[in-house]
Amino acid sequence: MVSRDLEGPLPPGSIIGILGGGQLGRMTALAAAELGYRTHIYCPETDCPASQVTPLATHAAYEDEAALARFAAAVDVVTFEFENIPLMTAEFLASSLALRPRPEILAICQDRLREKDFCQSLGIATAPYAAVDGPEALARHARDFGTPAVLKTTRLGYDGKGQVRIEADSDPETAWAEMAGSQSQATGILEAFVDFRLEISVIAARGLDGQTVTYSAVENQHENHILRTTIAPARIDPVAAAKAKDMARRLAEALDLQGLLAVEMFVTADDILVNELAPRPHNSGHWTLDAGPTSQFEQFVRAVAGLPLGSTAFHGRAEMQNLLGDEAACWLAILADPDAKLHLSGKSEARPGRKMGHVTRLIADA
Amino acid sequence: MVSRDLEGPLPPGSIIGILGGGQLGRMTALAAAELGYRTHIYCPETDCPASQVTPLATHAAYEDEAALARFAAAVDVVTFEFENIPLMTAEFLASSLALRPRPEILAICQDRLREKDFCQSLGIATAPYAAVDGPEALARHARDFGTPAVLKTTRLGYDGKGQVRIEADSDPETAWAEMAGSQSQATGILEAFVDFRLEISVIAARGLDGQTVTYSAVENQHENHILRTTIAPARIDPVAAAKAKDMARRLAEALDLQGLLAVEMFVTADDILVNELAPRPHNSGHWTLDAGPTSQFEQFVRAVAGLPLGSTAFHGRAEMQNLLGDEAACWLAILADPDAKLHLSGKSEARPGRKMGHVTRLIADA
Repeated sequence: MVSRDLEGPLPPGSIIGILGGGQLGRMTALAAAELGYRTHIYCPETDCPASQVTPLATHAAYEDEAALARFAAAVDVVTFEFENIPLMTAEFLASSLALRPRPEILAICQDRLREKDFCQSLGIATAPYAAVDGPEALARHARDFGTPAVLKTTRLGYDGKGQVRIEADSDPETAWAEMAGSQSQATGILEAFVDFRLEISVIAARGLDGQTVTYSAVENQHENHILRTTIAPARIDPVAAAKAKDMARRLAEALDLQGLLAVEMFVTADDILVNELAPRPHNSGHWTLDAGPTSQFEQFVRAVAGLPLGSTAFHGRAEMQNLLGDEAACWLAILADPDAKLHLSGKSEARPGRKMGHVTRLIADA
Repeated sequence: MVSRDLEGPLPPGSIIGILGGGQLGRMTALAAAELGYRTHIYCPETDCPASQVTPLATHAAYEDEAALARFAAAVDVVTFEFENIPLMTAEFLASSLALRPRPEILAICQDRLREKDFCQSLGIATAPYAAVDGPEALARHARDFGTPAVLKTTRLGYDGKGQVRIEADSDPETAWAEMAGSQSQATGILEAFVDFRLEISVIAARGLDGQTVTYSAVENQHENHILRTTIAPARIDPVAAAKAKDMARRLAEALDLQGLLAVEMFVTADDILVNELAPRPHNSGHWTLDAGPTSQFEQFVRAVAGLPLGSTAFHGRAEMQNLLGDEAACWLAILADPDAKLHLSGKSEARPGRKMGHVTRLIADA
């Protein structure tokens, strides 16, 4: 295959390939359609949320090179809607066409250890952390950090999966086995407990020309490691809000990002620490669909398509609630509330904790 | 086929069938997806704007009963995005499942004469009009009304097609032939010239339970019979605006509408006259995509799906410009304007006067 360079803006009618078929891909495809683009979804699962909104889909394994080659030939640019696609898949596609963000960013964000090392290299604070390769190292670093602490897999964890809380009386062998699960070659990262006052996040977008914009810092409330509520903007002082936005901007620039970067952070008594990076649209940015001119999904499409970025202004404070599992059963009551905006993601099975959609309410200023 | 009654709200995951594959169908399908519905497009043309945003499409003639029967079996409710589908098609579908709005409304709105008779029957003013069945009747009524006047086909005209301006020196035979075109059995309607100050429109939505809401009256500027600009709300006095909304509401109620009704009106020195009805989303309602919580497309989906209707409030004045033909070539400049919202409809060929998309700008109040 000959690599197709794409230096300028993607013309209307072009096809954006999206790796991953979940709700983030679905909302990205809807935003792309508003701008006149077509989208082609690549994911193993059939009838996924994203492939309900475009006639173009490839359902194949991420390791299927023949399918990937056909996909690459059928689209004009490729992006991804979640960061746990195999790095090999991204590199294979990037060898023949523009993959945005670039695979190196995926490699960093797929690995909690590399992610934190990257932040540290920029002088951006994180919680104290250490790589652990087994129960012995776990016990040693837990003594250094004190307890509680959190043991995580370096790779493939999300929504609290692969995380074990380490207490003073935790058995290192048991904790290690619980974290590693079925992975025979697991690497772990132990993170010191952070006594945070607030969890916040900032979404940065960076275009092909290096233009970088950030949305307001927002406040996130989690339950069982799953995002429950986002309040936009975060109720923090303006200096802290500006610092958080600056951190996200510096990370996006240092990554040479083309796309979106969501930065989850802890606000402590005297600092802001980066918790996690996600190089894609983020659940904590869903409020932008209803509160401003440019949603995070349109911004993502603009960045990936090499377009000028849109305004990140907003016209009201917003509160976004995820609808988890059978909470989506209250869709009719939400629709009857004139102040609520319902978004459902087309999932048919309401498993407990599954993100079925969300509802945003604009909040009148006091 | 057994008729499937659908009395309650349509559950998420259900399939809304849409007759017609144009940009109105596309934007309706996008709005349906946000609410968790799937859409199935039925239209003769392949690769139409609407079938770019759903995997479910039937491309067949409107007269193809076998294809219609398969379509009816594959969807949960049916609507249409333009009113010039054959009435027989609507009636065929309505015999087996819910078609909203009902076929009788289509029958009225497909015929300029029936449409105006319907308005008159409610005491709602229109321009003076008369049915004409040939050059002789045309000449007689033109003398009654005075000139200029407009001769139109009663059926299948849109964007100025099938319309002939009648002047004092017009030859009735020539004018009749021009209006009738290739139609051997044309019926005409002669409409008196209206000395209007402003063209406005109001979009009403009516739900399954009879709840009726109206959007603000907006001001429309046409060029060559094609909508060029909409300014929302219309710059008319509040009494006139309320009267226009009330006229739209009365029409929707009298039609026993389930869906949307766009009412085009003329504002004269001392009255408001109905010009045209369209039982579907309308170009003059595109501003609602960016200026308020519930777009006309979401409202349409809500009405057709038997959901509670959404708020018709708006958070700013708006100006919508259509992008006709090669005007869409300026897409990149529009994207670079932070105050502009671009919407493109996925049409590949930019024929002169063709609606390729639109741009909305929110206007700060003075």
